[in-house]
Amino acid sequence: MSLPPARRREPVSPLKYRFLENRPVNQDAFQDYYPDELSHCYGCGRLNEQGLQLKSRWDGEESVAVFQPRPYHIAIPGYVYGGLLASLIDCHGTGTAAAAAYREAGRPMGSEPAFRFVTASLQVDYLRPTPMGVPLEIRGRVQEVKGRKVVVSATVAADGVTVARGQVVAVQMPEHMMPMAGG
Amino acid sequence: MSLPPARRREPVSPLKYRFLENRPVNQDAFQDYYPDELSHCYGCGRLNEQGLQLKSRWDGEESVAVFQPRPYHIAIPGYVYGGLLASLIDCHGTGTAAAAAYREAGRPMGSEPAFRFVTASLQVDYLRPTPMGVPLEIRGRVQEVKGRKVVVSATVAADGVTVARGQVVAVQMPEHMMPMAGG
Repeated sequence: MSLPPARRREPVSPLKYRFLENRPVNQDAFQDYYPDELSHCYGCGRLNEQGLQLKSRWDGEESVAVFQPRPYHIAIPGYVYGGLLASLIDCHGTGTAAAAAYREAGRPMGSEPAFRFVTASLQVDYLRPTPMGVPLEIRGRVQEVKGRKVVVSATVAADGVTVARGQVVAVQMPEHMMPMAGG
Repeated sequence: MSLPPARRREPVSPLKYRFLENRPVNQDAFQDYYPDELSHCYGCGRLNEQGLQLKSRWDGEESVAVFQPRPYHIAIPGYVYGGLLASLIDCHGTGTAAAAAYREAGRPMGSEPAFRFVTASLQVDYLRPTPMGVPLEIRGRVQEVKGRKVVVSATVAADGVTVARGQVVAVQMPEHMMPMAGG
């Protein structure tokens, strides 16, 4: 008897986040589709063991990621380091840009050739101090897809309160930056 | 016989950086003057053992810091993570803002009450990919000092080539964020 073709398996335990009103997040993350050789990013590479390993997913027209700052991600005691928020917005922005490019091209995520974006510019406005000890929710919204450029706006919320707002101008990675597969 | 009054001692081994044309950097860093309770920042706190411990100093009208990215600070293999550059610009900007505030007030650095700035907004333009394996030089220039606000522009160079440009709007830390001394 022949088995059906292998399919991408749904995660066994869908994560639930209070921020998402207990809606299960049961899709693979954008970053899970990056090819191995492009998955070493300190902010979002699944192969960077010391990194932040941010995971971004669609939630309707928005993209969402949740990140729990580590105890040492301090600005001043009790508050989260602003450079971390900038990093989260950065990687959530480039991840959302890749997902938007697949969507725009009518291609399933992970299909070849891979879409992978780098940051051309990053803007972050810090609206209020970010308390430690709660997960942060990063939300993105695609503002523009034009040629190799995607503009993504983002917010960061702590305990439901928006603490930062930002924008990422992402551009498709130039060919000459592409590492050799397996390299 | 009486001794002369104690003075701040020059570092025994002045650091030399190629970027600075072998001019010795023999001042204490701005961040060395932060009070202990404000020295836990992930980017520049001397008491954050897991942090980046950025050190910024005056070099004439500019401020300068040098940072060697760690092997895991990867964007894609061979290139430095953009969120790290944003973090370096952020902390170099707030450090330069504090130093500028002391200078503006005609007060020696480290005198009480401490000037400590937080980031209101951060803008980074990534001009070209940043190669791994070389120290990065971050240079700041004070654009404006107005009330509690200081605007600092910054560049990041790798091997003498400017790879990123940014701006930090820093504001003096609100009193209610001030941790208790020793807390």
